[in-house]
Amino acid sequence: MGAAAGEGAATGSGPVGVIAGGGMLPLEVAEAIEAAGGRVVVAGIDGEADLVLRRPDARSFRWGQIGGAIDLMASRGVHDLVFVGTITRRPDFRSLRLDAGTLRRLPRILQALVGGDDGVVRKVLKLIEAEGFHVRGIGEVAPALLAAEGPLGRLGADDDQIEDARFAMAALAALGPYDVGQAAVVMQRRIVALEAAEGTDRMLARVAELRQLGRVSTKGGGVLVKRAKPGQDLRTELPTIGPATVAAAAAAKLAGIVIEAGRTIIADRQETIAQADRAGLFLVGLPGEGDAA
Amino acid sequence: MGAAAGEGAATGSGPVGVIAGGGMLPLEVAEAIEAAGGRVVVAGIDGEADLVLRRPDARSFRWGQIGGAIDLMASRGVHDLVFVGTITRRPDFRSLRLDAGTLRRLPRILQALVGGDDGVVRKVLKLIEAEGFHVRGIGEVAPALLAAEGPLGRLGADDDQIEDARFAMAALAALGPYDVGQAAVVMQRRIVALEAAEGTDRMLARVAELRQLGRVSTKGGGVLVKRAKPGQDLRTELPTIGPATVAAAAAAKLAGIVIEAGRTIIADRQETIAQADRAGLFLVGLPGEGDAA
Repeated sequence: MGAAAGEGAATGSGPVGVIAGGGMLPLEVAEAIEAAGGRVVVAGIDGEADLVLRRPDARSFRWGQIGGAIDLMASRGVHDLVFVGTITRRPDFRSLRLDAGTLRRLPRILQALVGGDDGVVRKVLKLIEAEGFHVRGIGEVAPALLAAEGPLGRLGADDDQIEDARFAMAALAALGPYDVGQAAVVMQRRIVALEAAEGTDRMLARVAELRQLGRVSTKGGGVLVKRAKPGQDLRTELPTIGPATVAAAAAAKLAGIVIEAGRTIIADRQETIAQADRAGLFLVGLPGEGDAA
Repeated sequence: MGAAAGEGAATGSGPVGVIAGGGMLPLEVAEAIEAAGGRVVVAGIDGEADLVLRRPDARSFRWGQIGGAIDLMASRGVHDLVFVGTITRRPDFRSLRLDAGTLRRLPRILQALVGGDDGVVRKVLKLIEAEGFHVRGIGEVAPALLAAEGPLGRLGADDDQIEDARFAMAALAALGPYDVGQAAVVMQRRIVALEAAEGTDRMLARVAELRQLGRVSTKGGGVLVKRAKPGQDLRTELPTIGPATVAAAAAAKLAGIVIEAGRTIIADRQETIAQADRAGLFLVGLPGEGDAA
């Protein structure tokens, strides 16, 4: 993972600015930076970043005050910014003129940095970068959150399941140039679901539905596979799993989850792994490179 | 299209045996064969093949009597068999020991001919072929049902929409080796949905849902793209559209539909095109070859 982090990994000199939404991940990112000897300045979005805002040093801000949050970062000597966490409420972006759909999840901002096609977001990021900040990826500032290789919980995958996972990883790799396909569900070398705009949890809900309809084997089994794009680096929005992913995979009666080692983020790691163990699902990290179509 | 039909196109000597499920397509296949100077022997599945069974020459059979239907074909001098039409009820396959899920749609039988992984279906097809029959594809025996190139209805696609369609066609082509990806929905070079086991209509229902949720542009627009696998020949199960496809695309507020010319079947062509015209959707045939990843 050290090699994959590339040049400019982690913090450099000053503290890392964490612009935070909801969920455990912002807290974990801040703690991982600190555990690695770095410092953070945390600004959490009012009404979203409840967990991270329990940190006494965290400031909250409303969407309309994002300029103030940026000013705070500058005054604290921040150069590296990371956007992390979920957004559940439609923000009021009239002041910023951003597309609310695009910003539903803050990490999507990062997509704009690597060729995402939303001109408005790119413009905002350019403004931020023009003020002297570097927008970093979670995998870059907090590599400890990336999945390791091998079984991450109690259970492992058998050879046939690993073969399934490699098959799906290769299919997703083939989609890389088209900027789609972060996840798939595969059963005996048959890909039964491919993720696009719906996100992983909805894709898994669909598999549960297809089982009930008898469109896929009603017996259970199959693997959720998540991977980054081939060549995708840690500065960009990486595939992420968490407890909700495990719950959705269990509801779809899958046998387990295979994620790309070194380039997938596990949010709420302890609970995610514990939940996989409880549900009897394997959770395995597998290298994703070298498998183009 | 003549070249794509390959050797052994259409009927050869005897009549073509049409084993029929529901929908207009079995009727259209039979009529297309006759319009091209061929003859047919039609056997329709009881309770499914209502439309084709209006033909006075059509025989009906229950799933348990499929052996009798095959015998009928042999007694009439049939060598070429085509399986066509939809199956809505779970057939009673105890006698045949087939997987009901696999046979939900009869055309899937054909997949087994080209490397499908269902050993049982392949075994049944081998039995049928061992009796001296050749199982043919719809595109092979009824090439008149294949989509032509260019606008098929009143409306055409603009350059930007064609560019979107080419982008999605290339992405689907990249999935060809993985035997998945007969359809996608694309909006401004962003692929928002990829079809796997759910089928096209469910994928389109998902796009309608994602619009309501604001996960894709709520303004409407976007293109449904369907194509065969690169190199897929007319003997295999080809992508098919019909009035239900158009209705689902309209409900998803798409701008139109692009299908691969020469390798996509249009069921109930007149109604399909009329419905696209009424809904204000373009329906365009586009060549699909030469666009590998």
